[in-house]
Amino acid sequence: MSITIALDGMGGDHGPAVVVPGALRALERLPDLRLILVGDTRVLGRELAARGAAPGPRLRLHHASQEVAMDELPSVALRTKKDSSMRVAVNLVKEGEADACVSAGNTGALMAIARFVLKTLPGIDRPAICSALPTVRGHTHVLDLGANVDSCAETLFQFALMGVALAAAVEGNERPTVGLLNIGVEEIKGNERVREAARLIASSHLNYIGFVEGDDVYEGVADVVVCDGFVGNVALKTSEGVARMIRHYMEREFRRSPWSRLVGLMARPILRAFGERIDPRRYNGASLLGLQGIVVKSHGSADSVAFARAVEVAVQEVRQAVPRRISRQLESLLAAKEAV
Amino acid sequence: MSITIALDGMGGDHGPAVVVPGALRALERLPDLRLILVGDTRVLGRELAARGAAPGPRLRLHHASQEVAMDELPSVALRTKKDSSMRVAVNLVKEGEADACVSAGNTGALMAIARFVLKTLPGIDRPAICSALPTVRGHTHVLDLGANVDSCAETLFQFALMGVALAAAVEGNERPTVGLLNIGVEEIKGNERVREAARLIASSHLNYIGFVEGDDVYEGVADVVVCDGFVGNVALKTSEGVARMIRHYMEREFRRSPWSRLVGLMARPILRAFGERIDPRRYNGASLLGLQGIVVKSHGSADSVAFARAVEVAVQEVRQAVPRRISRQLESLLAAKEAV
Repeated sequence: MSITIALDGMGGDHGPAVVVPGALRALERLPDLRLILVGDTRVLGRELAARGAAPGPRLRLHHASQEVAMDELPSVALRTKKDSSMRVAVNLVKEGEADACVSAGNTGALMAIARFVLKTLPGIDRPAICSALPTVRGHTHVLDLGANVDSCAETLFQFALMGVALAAAVEGNERPTVGLLNIGVEEIKGNERVREAARLIASSHLNYIGFVEGDDVYEGVADVVVCDGFVGNVALKTSEGVARMIRHYMEREFRRSPWSRLVGLMARPILRAFGERIDPRRYNGASLLGLQGIVVKSHGSADSVAFARAVEVAVQEVRQAVPRRISRQLESLLAAKEAV
Repeated sequence: MSITIALDGMGGDHGPAVVVPGALRALERLPDLRLILVGDTRVLGRELAARGAAPGPRLRLHHASQEVAMDELPSVALRTKKDSSMRVAVNLVKEGEADACVSAGNTGALMAIARFVLKTLPGIDRPAICSALPTVRGHTHVLDLGANVDSCAETLFQFALMGVALAAAVEGNERPTVGLLNIGVEEIKGNERVREAARLIASSHLNYIGFVEGDDVYEGVADVVVCDGFVGNVALKTSEGVARMIRHYMEREFRRSPWSRLVGLMARPILRAFGERIDPRRYNGASLLGLQGIVVKSHGSADSVAFARAVEVAVQEVRQAVPRRISRQLESLLAAKEAV
């Protein structure tokens, strides 16, 4: 069965210059995929033509007269950009024209619009942003990465449920392990909200492994790592910063002398293979979980390879019916409570 | 003038096996340094003898009959370990026998004991843990790294004052820049505490540059980065985890074939030079700031090279009279307020 994804054609730092080649790449890789490119059809048509492509049954254009700016306040975007490419793409999901949508635009606006248009699932208070991150053992799903700050214990617990539903769906592992991000310094570890969330998760049906610390995330000790959005966002961006700094210093050493440049040349295929393993593009595509619909956020600065990866994430979530799985996790929870 | 540092001889994952060679290394590197090794004098004497060394005027032994375990609750250590190597080392600072102390032991216990014995500086509510971290441009001082969770705006503001005092002292830069760690996703960025702290710092005499995000830390955009201890601890440990994962995958690629092993052999000096640049041992030695005395925490798993580095951090803080500089920052603040 074919899957239809609506793309915010104008979103991201590079707009159609990345979305259009990203869309073409995704179509090539997934034969049963159909795309609806939303935005200024003239601009999008030109981008397609420049790549020797044209609209067709697998790639429709859908006009939208506005764009959400990357630095626009979410509330302003929600109120004043009702015909933006982002809003229209989300509307297509609501109307059942598309099975999911992908945007590289303003995260806050996407969250606000998706929440307003699609609504949260019954039993979910706040949607969360979840992404896979590479680990020594494979990868892990981390949430929330910035949708909610000062999350209370109940919210953290809901993140655990949603993360488990996602991991179970995309990994084919019905009992993914879940850890709660904490610190090991305080008297009784962490803060009250985290401790209360631990109690909630531990007494649920979830496969809880306890607290994990920052360095455990990349060790892959848990399939799902739960944290407040402030903490998760800082952890994610800090990780990006460290990786960039390491790359900076490594490149500098390989440029230091003619000999080191020669060795660098010989080492290039090896370093490239290594780089591919932890390439952030492989992990592009963060899920907005907890909505009555599938919305995937591509990194604003993503290139077309990374954008195509985000489309694949959306496709996978459609195939695995992730929102229904989240609802089922909630039902299991209620059933377990009633059985007590 | 000679400087005397008391060392918790039994602290850390490796105890005297690291502290003793670390002490000898520090003595070699700093001719005007004197050390007091605190702990089980029989064990410490044996460790010294095994390295062809003996107590003398520059290296005194001071007996303590107890040890604080790495997993001991701080409150228990405070109440029941009054003759522990950690407690006695801190006492020596209080009594003026030592100018500072260094411990690789239990962080929570060290903080609790140091706070109880030395007291905080007038005007400082809560001590913070501050460490230098490498950046693309050099390094930056980050606090709090885990002493305080759920820090209020006023506490974050005091962290800024203390971090600036430390950076000014050890960098010889009287106007270090200070940034407040935040996330860029929320409607009005971050949470209320961070926004209020921003107002406090911005209206003070400090050289405030505004909000910084996780990836900015390693770009070196600010000389001092301020955050809550939960967030800082997660960011620090996550960074360690990413660096370890990168190393893991890089080593794996260089082991993949005889050719890649050969290239790896040739690249080793280059990779080593690069590794030294971001070697965590270079950045060992976190300062417990805000106390009436100088206390430096060495990483629990540090080796002797790293431990010696922590001793050097303590020496530098003694030379620059960091606690007095923090008090002076508080006075500048009050003077500026009165002038208004």
